[in-house]
Amino acid sequence: MTAGGGSVDVSEIGELVPPDRTLMGPGPSDVHPRVLKAMSTPLVGHLDPSFIEIMNDVQELLRYTFRTDNRWTIPVSGTGSAAMEAAIGNLVEPGDTMLVPTNGYFGGRMASMARRAGGDVVEVDAPWGEPLEPDDVADALAEHDPDVFGFVHAETSTGVLQPDVPELTAAAHDHDAVVIADTVTSIGGVELRVDEWGIDVAYAGPQKCLSCPPGASPLTLSDDAMEKVLSREEQSRSWYLDLSLLEGYWGDERAYHHTAPITSVYAIREALRLVAEEGIEQRWARHERLAGALKAGVEAMGLEMNAPDAYWLPSLNAVRVPEGIDDGDVCTELLERYDLEIASGLGDLDGDIFRIGCMGHSARPENVIYVLTALGDVLEGMGADVDPGRGVTAGRRALGE
Amino acid sequence: MTAGGGSVDVSEIGELVPPDRTLMGPGPSDVHPRVLKAMSTPLVGHLDPSFIEIMNDVQELLRYTFRTDNRWTIPVSGTGSAAMEAAIGNLVEPGDTMLVPTNGYFGGRMASMARRAGGDVVEVDAPWGEPLEPDDVADALAEHDPDVFGFVHAETSTGVLQPDVPELTAAAHDHDAVVIADTVTSIGGVELRVDEWGIDVAYAGPQKCLSCPPGASPLTLSDDAMEKVLSREEQSRSWYLDLSLLEGYWGDERAYHHTAPITSVYAIREALRLVAEEGIEQRWARHERLAGALKAGVEAMGLEMNAPDAYWLPSLNAVRVPEGIDDGDVCTELLERYDLEIASGLGDLDGDIFRIGCMGHSARPENVIYVLTALGDVLEGMGADVDPGRGVTAGRRALGE
Repeated sequence: MTAGGGSVDVSEIGELVPPDRTLMGPGPSDVHPRVLKAMSTPLVGHLDPSFIEIMNDVQELLRYTFRTDNRWTIPVSGTGSAAMEAAIGNLVEPGDTMLVPTNGYFGGRMASMARRAGGDVVEVDAPWGEPLEPDDVADALAEHDPDVFGFVHAETSTGVLQPDVPELTAAAHDHDAVVIADTVTSIGGVELRVDEWGIDVAYAGPQKCLSCPPGASPLTLSDDAMEKVLSREEQSRSWYLDLSLLEGYWGDERAYHHTAPITSVYAIREALRLVAEEGIEQRWARHERLAGALKAGVEAMGLEMNAPDAYWLPSLNAVRVPEGIDDGDVCTELLERYDLEIASGLGDLDGDIFRIGCMGHSARPENVIYVLTALGDVLEGMGADVDPGRGVTAGRRALGE
Repeated sequence: MTAGGGSVDVSEIGELVPPDRTLMGPGPSDVHPRVLKAMSTPLVGHLDPSFIEIMNDVQELLRYTFRTDNRWTIPVSGTGSAAMEAAIGNLVEPGDTMLVPTNGYFGGRMASMARRAGGDVVEVDAPWGEPLEPDDVADALAEHDPDVFGFVHAETSTGVLQPDVPELTAAAHDHDAVVIADTVTSIGGVELRVDEWGIDVAYAGPQKCLSCPPGASPLTLSDDAMEKVLSREEQSRSWYLDLSLLEGYWGDERAYHHTAPITSVYAIREALRLVAEEGIEQRWARHERLAGALKAGVEAMGLEMNAPDAYWLPSLNAVRVPEGIDDGDVCTELLERYDLEIASGLGDLDGDIFRIGCMGHSARPENVIYVLTALGDVLEGMGADVDPGRGVTAGRRALGE
């Protein structure tokens, strides 16, 4: 091997044969076979007239799924964090103040992005594992008068669903703040109504309740929010994610900006078609029913949910780790013995919770029973005080089996 | 339809059936069936131990393809422009000066990204359709003493291959400037030796000579370049593309940063395996041979190449539009009658050239003959003074047929 070319014999890197996992963690979720098939479709060019029709379809399907009529509804060319940065990096101008929550991992990420955009960050506090209180938000808005208010609708790090969204957005609008919602783990899985709830900007990831491989990530902006973007005094700090430039490609002009991730657009189109076929409200109901069975099962087994029912997040179930059990060992054993992915906690809840997803194509009866069976078995083997049989029975009963 | 959910009946959006194009434009190129098949592989999680092996494979294969031993060699989670912004946005700090070229579209994009990163931009001039002259680069370096020097190895907008790369990098290093090379249209298609040529940072796109759908894009940095990134006084302005954070995921720690585009990583792994199986030097030779036949054919037909042989870019052939012919009409007719994509010129060469790619899996004899046949036919039908028969014959002869 000559210098400059790596040290490994690359001819020894064999065919791609990843293990056959069941994905019940915080995402990605299992991908529907129709979406996988769509990804093996040969490409057309990103400026091909036929691709422009495909783009239109995706935009329309995203509007349906977000429950919005927003014209500025697009898939961003990257994973969920790219859509998040597109939202924050364009809406927050140097000198703007953004109000962010402290009750989970993703509020912290919002803060980091807002600072990098040149903004000042102020916080509204709530503990990890709790939602924001509307009164606290109203107080923070009154105190700081922020330009932008961000909140996380479905906190993947804590399994908490933020209730009272219309109350939060109304309070923000009373102070003329633009509202950005993180809907990564809610879109397509739990009730989300962008227009009716007064959300100005929402971003999401495709690999959670839409069960689409990460690569093109949903973003929607109201006309007012886009007006703020288009009237910025200074260009956004990212060229790649500059919505005033992306407007040229996704708007009427269809002018070249960057090469779109064509296959990822194919994939999200098919994933969103599955949403439309099922019906968005039926899909929300399915997640609640399936995750409800999971919850009934883990509780019957003798485990405890971290979130009270009032803000339980069906798509991401935070289950408390039993006394004396190492969460990492459990996850490893589930992966190795059952090819099953669930996840540990993060941040303030590190070591305290398991995070069990119930998302999109993964939200199926067989997966729910499989998780209850495998988790019960592994915990029992480690000496936890659980009754796996009761868990599975309760799960089956909740599923009507 | 209730308010907030789009105006179209989404149930009428049918199965994905894009036309069956032959892609001989500036990218994307035709994707090898093995890569399409890899994209339909079910997902594992982005923190799964098996995915970490896959990441290692991709890094090793990228090193092979870039001809580098750089440890910091990764696929960036986005299309080529994301890798470009990762390079420029991390290397250019506020107050830094970046020297960029003016001889094509992508020098302008470099300038825009550098400014957004907080840098000052100075230019080294050459006309569109010409390479940079080493003397001009040396003069500009002496005059401006920039911190970063960017150049485009293979200009997709003009079909120009930059010769004398080691001379340019040596001059830059004499002035302690970090060299960033745009290798989007050269990687895997024309000779490129990152280490031997003294390139500090190179970024690329997967959808050109690697024939991989856009989604995860090659980037490599030398230890010295990474040292500059890691010793920044201010964080990079993008969280998503912050290499000091990505280091945690792609380095030894394998810590969560953002959800990697798993399927795109599968795809680039397979595309790079095809590179390694063919052999990188053999692949460069194939591009030269196939594009040589294309060039012989268009010249024999009576058309003129825009670039002289000394800096002809095999992967992107700029062919002058014959007098009196509208380039856009030609492209449209090729697409509609032949399902064949080639492209028009951009910027200073708008209306003057066709851009005909010969990249990766598209660089096959049948495609070359198909382009010569179709282009000749369409031009002749529009009254251009061309001899399609001679073109095809010359192409076949050059292919040894």
